[in-house]
Amino acid sequence: MSSRTIISCLQEAKRVAIFGGTHGNEMSGITLVNMWIQNSVEIERDGLVSKPFISNPRAVEKCTRYIDTDLNRAFTPENLSAPDVEGLPYEIQRAKEINRMFGPKGSSDAYDVIFDLHNTTSNMGSTLILESSTDFFNLQMVHYIKKAMAPHTCSVLLNEHPQLKYSTTRSVAKHPIGLEVGPQPQGVLRSNVFESMRTILKHALDFLELFNSGVEFPPCTVDVFRIQERMDYPRDTNGNITAMVHPHLQDCDWEPLNRGDPMFLTFDGRTILYEGANTVYPTFINEAAYYEKQQAFVTTCREILAANAIRKASNVFS
Amino acid sequence: MSSRTIISCLQEAKRVAIFGGTHGNEMSGITLVNMWIQNSVEIERDGLVSKPFISNPRAVEKCTRYIDTDLNRAFTPENLSAPDVEGLPYEIQRAKEINRMFGPKGSSDAYDVIFDLHNTTSNMGSTLILESSTDFFNLQMVHYIKKAMAPHTCSVLLNEHPQLKYSTTRSVAKHPIGLEVGPQPQGVLRSNVFESMRTILKHALDFLELFNSGVEFPPCTVDVFRIQERMDYPRDTNGNITAMVHPHLQDCDWEPLNRGDPMFLTFDGRTILYEGANTVYPTFINEAAYYEKQQAFVTTCREILAANAIRKASNVFS
Repeated sequence: MSSRTIISCLQEAKRVAIFGGTHGNEMSGITLVNMWIQNSVEIERDGLVSKPFISNPRAVEKCTRYIDTDLNRAFTPENLSAPDVEGLPYEIQRAKEINRMFGPKGSSDAYDVIFDLHNTTSNMGSTLILESSTDFFNLQMVHYIKKAMAPHTCSVLLNEHPQLKYSTTRSVAKHPIGLEVGPQPQGVLRSNVFESMRTILKHALDFLELFNSGVEFPPCTVDVFRIQERMDYPRDTNGNITAMVHPHLQDCDWEPLNRGDPMFLTFDGRTILYEGANTVYPTFINEAAYYEKQQAFVTTCREILAANAIRKASNVFS
Repeated sequence: MSSRTIISCLQEAKRVAIFGGTHGNEMSGITLVNMWIQNSVEIERDGLVSKPFISNPRAVEKCTRYIDTDLNRAFTPENLSAPDVEGLPYEIQRAKEINRMFGPKGSSDAYDVIFDLHNTTSNMGSTLILESSTDFFNLQMVHYIKKAMAPHTCSVLLNEHPQLKYSTTRSVAKHPIGLEVGPQPQGVLRSNVFESMRTILKHALDFLELFNSGVEFPPCTVDVFRIQERMDYPRDTNGNITAMVHPHLQDCDWEPLNRGDPMFLTFDGRTILYEGANTVYPTFINEAAYYEKQQAFVTTCREILAANAIRKASNVFS
């Protein structure tokens, strides 16, 4: 058996976009991006074109999640290929614009990386969201960020699921990556959340600069939480919510939930227990924006992903 | 000198309304009121007519603070006497309706008590809001609630200020009282906040029942925080915010802020200190809804209010 390392030689990551305001009431990303539009020194790196961008400006202006429909669910093939007719919902128009500017999605012309900056009302701390378990470039980046953030925790949510994966704004890029930091109420800017997001992005850009300069990153593993199941609030026959997240579960994102643990508390004081067979790790617990999506939290399972060594491919044509 | 107690003999408090959803995204009050509309046993007391009421149903439906304008600033004499013409902003129409149902404001026909249930994104804990320092009935009620809540704290904000007092929904009643519980993000229901609000209201209704039954309440004093000054975020010449609430001030509602203490942190990392001469007690720190009102927090000063003994007046005409 040979002990030689397999190295994946990957394309340079030259064009990078930083999106804020995909949801117009998530203030940390909006504030950072607006700041960088004014003065981009902080996000400049050698060998990198960094574009800060407000993805849903009308929603930002109104400080609301969206105008007509959730932009971060809008990047479906149907929407992106819809004809430009009058009366198209605002976010569908905007998805098509973003796809023209930063895509086309799935093409070789697409941006290399899009960081999409989000906040949550859940107690998720600093979280990176990945869409694929086999994107070694992103896994290496996440590994780098986690190490650089230590001793502070940076969790990784793997949103790779046949039903639960959705068509994100960032999915236009070759390497989409979501930053989700909380807890922060909608419409509020908290300095601790703002600074955490800024620090994660600093490390991410440092990684890109190192990669583009030719540094080789050895094989690594990344602990992730893989999305499993969407859990709704208990409801009556009219669809009205009849219970709240139980105080023992509230704010306990990423902590184990075992069979028999309290999950909901009904308005008349009855505790509803978790009855799944296996231990799960809930997250997005009691996120404001997910009431309308019939979601009290999602369950995840822990998994370790492996990534090949990577380095920049030498461009034989240059 | 006589040591006899002066007793204020006050009118029976028979008609009580409990308002939720004056702001349509403050979920605890909305959920409690909807629950009590379905089943009112919990809020029934001898000698009391308790009316649970959703004050801004269209805002509740949209889970937004308001539709056209803030209902909780709309109860001005001008609005309440405005002719019923077409195109009146929704909340002005609604203010006139509420005034017809529960008022007229300032008249002997008005409801005796309105409890208005609010949530805040600020770390204010359980707070009662009063509009007058000389309403002995409310001071006695607040004194009763604070004692019943102990050892849990229940702060009292006195919103009696020539410029900063505003025309609240509850101001229609003879004895208006606001409940403000936080922190809770907009659009989120947290079980701890829900239960605190429910407990405060239980004690409030118990007080009313005791008072109506003829119980005499001896003279008392109440520690309050009197509103003093509205503090805005630092802004640039275009009016854009340039700093955040400093991490040393964030979540420190009701704690002393002294000259030289950190107050804001600019986006480029500079600390802005509090420069007032006197110690103040900030509250409503970083409330989501107050960004549009140019308010980062309000300052208060501590004060002790005294209330006469009270008992129900015997009705000589009955």
